[in-house]
Amino acid sequence: MSESAKVEISRGLENVYIKATSLTFIDGEKGILRYRGYDINELAKNAHYEEVIHLMLYGELPNREQLSRVKDTLNSSYEVPEDVLRVMEVLPKDSEPVALMEAGLAALATHEKGFKWKEGDREKALEIIGKVSTITANVYRVKEGLAPKIPKPSDSYAKSFLEATFNKSFSGTETSMMDNFLVLYADHEVPASTTAALVTASTLSDMYSCMVSAITALKGPLHGGAMEAAFAQFREIGDPSRVDEWFERNIVKGGNRLMGFGHRVYRTYDPRGKVFKSMAETVSKGEARKYLEIAERLEKLGVRYFEAKKIYPNTDFYAGIVMYGLGFPDYMFTPLFALSRTLGWLAHVVEYVDEQHRLIRPRALYVGPGERKFVPLDQRK
Amino acid sequence: MSESAKVEISRGLENVYIKATSLTFIDGEKGILRYRGYDINELAKNAHYEEVIHLMLYGELPNREQLSRVKDTLNSSYEVPEDVLRVMEVLPKDSEPVALMEAGLAALATHEKGFKWKEGDREKALEIIGKVSTITANVYRVKEGLAPKIPKPSDSYAKSFLEATFNKSFSGTETSMMDNFLVLYADHEVPASTTAALVTASTLSDMYSCMVSAITALKGPLHGGAMEAAFAQFREIGDPSRVDEWFERNIVKGGNRLMGFGHRVYRTYDPRGKVFKSMAETVSKGEARKYLEIAERLEKLGVRYFEAKKIYPNTDFYAGIVMYGLGFPDYMFTPLFALSRTLGWLAHVVEYVDEQHRLIRPRALYVGPGERKFVPLDQRK
Repeated sequence: MSESAKVEISRGLENVYIKATSLTFIDGEKGILRYRGYDINELAKNAHYEEVIHLMLYGELPNREQLSRVKDTLNSSYEVPEDVLRVMEVLPKDSEPVALMEAGLAALATHEKGFKWKEGDREKALEIIGKVSTITANVYRVKEGLAPKIPKPSDSYAKSFLEATFNKSFSGTETSMMDNFLVLYADHEVPASTTAALVTASTLSDMYSCMVSAITALKGPLHGGAMEAAFAQFREIGDPSRVDEWFERNIVKGGNRLMGFGHRVYRTYDPRGKVFKSMAETVSKGEARKYLEIAERLEKLGVRYFEAKKIYPNTDFYAGIVMYGLGFPDYMFTPLFALSRTLGWLAHVVEYVDEQHRLIRPRALYVGPGERKFVPLDQRK
Repeated sequence: MSESAKVEISRGLENVYIKATSLTFIDGEKGILRYRGYDINELAKNAHYEEVIHLMLYGELPNREQLSRVKDTLNSSYEVPEDVLRVMEVLPKDSEPVALMEAGLAALATHEKGFKWKEGDREKALEIIGKVSTITANVYRVKEGLAPKIPKPSDSYAKSFLEATFNKSFSGTETSMMDNFLVLYADHEVPASTTAALVTASTLSDMYSCMVSAITALKGPLHGGAMEAAFAQFREIGDPSRVDEWFERNIVKGGNRLMGFGHRVYRTYDPRGKVFKSMAETVSKGEARKYLEIAERLEKLGVRYFEAKKIYPNTDFYAGIVMYGLGFPDYMFTPLFALSRTLGWLAHVVEYVDEQHRLIRPRALYVGPGERKFVPLDQRK
């Protein structure tokens, strides 16, 4: 086709700017990540998830009154229609957990009728964040064969989620680990899942369907599974004394990828990775302590080995240890990622539809056969 | 930000080429649409949907042996796990029908474990096409309060679908109308729904989740709802004698959009629209005949009025009348679109993953505030 000479295919949409954003700034060379101008380290140290929710959706850190409005809306949003929990219960228990989330959110989408974008879409976003807590908690409960549970209103989204999931109390330290996790994974610009959500939002589909779309993309092994894959390595190694031998055999000689290392954007330490490492150091005991020791030794070997290539631990390397330390099985790592990232997905779709909406409709370059005459069935070879 | 001077935002990804394709060629100026080189008119006249399925997935029109292999696989794929039908039954009967499809397909995705791309993804595509027939038929049945029904194996995908949906026999003429509909809507390059499917596929998520992603985008009023919207106008007008007055009031004076007219790509008659018009002329009786007369008068007025702007009837203008003539209520028009387009979605994702796979990860241009110092809650205004 003559057309092919003139146009270029943007493979993977690399370096294509799909939108402007005031949400997240990343400097991959320096290892800087900011939400609306606030450094991720400062936020992880000082801000609760509810404050980050307000920051991302409304543009500023909330004052006391705004904060309590956010908390009230979240607390009043945990209930979901009974049929949504029924859907999760009738599906196979050995489903991939992210597929269960996908089905639970799609079930919620069937309850959306007549939603109008722009009018109250931030309120709707808060409602969704509330209900995703319920869906995520019940992914665990369904898979463990436990009765469904709705998070109870409390002063903390993290606490309500933890207590519904495990049906027990958590200490302030533990709740604050969960809170930090939610802050750290909340947004990271426009990876595939956020892009899928934007495409869906661009047709003015409902906001639940945008979340479903994001989750279908997060589900892919090239996107959401890195935390679980990194942790699987620690399990495989099994003991700190075996790290060197494992590294030599699998990475140096085997040439395999070291999971939880390297990132398309960062050419240095992922700032979130550092926070997770220090969190893991404070919290880990028992088995988690063992995995931490394995990870720390692996980090040393990896950083030295990959120095020239500028490959460093990313956010997924230590995050799994923290979540494991809180009591989550490995299969919950990707759903936990989705729970936190729901905020980023929603903030991006709201920003897109409210400020820069346009139907997303790229092109495909035709490179196939020219005009052909139809051949009847009997004359085909 | 200094970066903003250098980069351009590709709003709506307009004129961005996301992939190469050998599937569909569109010449919007001349009104030409071809699948792998075969003109859409020739295919609508001569080919059954199963032949087009083979053409799109395997590259060529099938010989007798290949055709019967396609039919066998489709016939053996109609069964779905019982829980998938249960999911559709427990959800609200007044759901948007496309949301029910979304939930049904998400339920199917929970049954996907360990699927590997490239190894047998065309077989998987056939299986999905079979099961989407079941899901679509049962969207109708659930909404009408009827017991679920699995399509029965037959010589024709269109016939199996129609008979399962309505639980009665259909004439050859009627089956062939359905068949033509399926051929005509099967693909149209990379609209938002196909783009969403591609983003999901790019993470190597499972193929059912790609269909879910596509449907979340089709669900939006800017994408999948045009057939229903066009038909709603005919209903509103109600009688051929009222077309002129309605047109004057709503379009000329009211400046409203004429639904089923105009298309981002075509600057002349949509070739599919012409086929649907002649189909509507052969089939319509009773109420359908009345809507056809309304549509024909509306077409005359519209074409004259919009001549300078090159706005002509698109595929959705007459398609609804044909489907209504077959017995489908208006609310089924978008699910029928999805049923047919499932082929295009799958053919594009298979082509993308097999031949030109790359994780889709665009960028967002940061235009928000520069670095800000964290302010504790008590000091915020």
